[in-house]
Amino acid sequence: MDIEKVNSMDFGEFVDVFGNVIERCPLIAAAVWSQRPFSDLEDLKKHFFAFIDALPQSGQEGILRCHPDLAGSELRRGTLTAESQREQSAAGLTSLGAEERLRLAELNAQYRARFGFPFVLAARF
Amino acid sequence: MDIEKVNSMDFGEFVDVFGNVIERCPLIAAAVWSQRPFSDLEDLKKHFFAFIDALPQSGQEGILRCHPDLAGSELRRGTLTAESQREQSAAGLTSLGAEERLRLAELNAQYRARFGFPFVLAARF
Repeated sequence: MDIEKVNSMDFGEFVDVFGNVIERCPLIAAAVWSQRPFSDLEDLKKHFFAFIDALPQSGQEGILRCHPDLAGSELRRGTLTAESQREQSAAGLTSLGAEERLRLAELNAQYRARFGFPFVLAARF
Repeated sequence: MDIEKVNSMDFGEFVDVFGNVIERCPLIAAAVWSQRPFSDLEDLKKHFFAFIDALPQSGQEGILRCHPDLAGSELRRGTLTAESQREQSAAGLTSLGAEERLRLAELNAQYRARFGFPFVLAARF
């Protein structure tokens, strides 16, 4: 992606493209937009990290809490974002057997109860 | 709403109920959840405000940038949140004439270009 093009985006275009870089937290892309111009994509990435690093711990945990479970209810209901749907499909989570699904649901629930946020893993290989 | 019930919610339930208190920023409710128990709804509200107040200015502006325009493209496309759909309908913004819609679109664009975030107004009377 051409960084000149990124720098010329109004905030609506920017959030359309980068709004889900942090899953379900378009607020972060909408904040980072005000830091333009960016020198390159690495610089853009740094601004995302800097914003997250500056959040209080509750906010950083809040980001994780907005993330869907792997093979969870949102996959079943079809309400995942396009990015998560692609990721979970590619990882085979749409074709689990009933027992595997149940076991994963149990483990997800245990993890949530223990840590106060969902188990998040980049489901890519 | 019973505050005991609120305090007993897991984060999934809490975000389901309060996730759109700040339009399209469920991250904020997901962060505030970790501050429970709340003494009453006023106390809950204070925690929302405290989180927002602690954000850098870019984050506070980011909240506004996540807010849909009044009578904008999302109303036309039917992609507003339920809360905004109700609010804009109740304010009569779904039944504007073509000229009014066009004029409002121009004014919204001018406001966005000038301030870097959309014109946000509680469209209730």
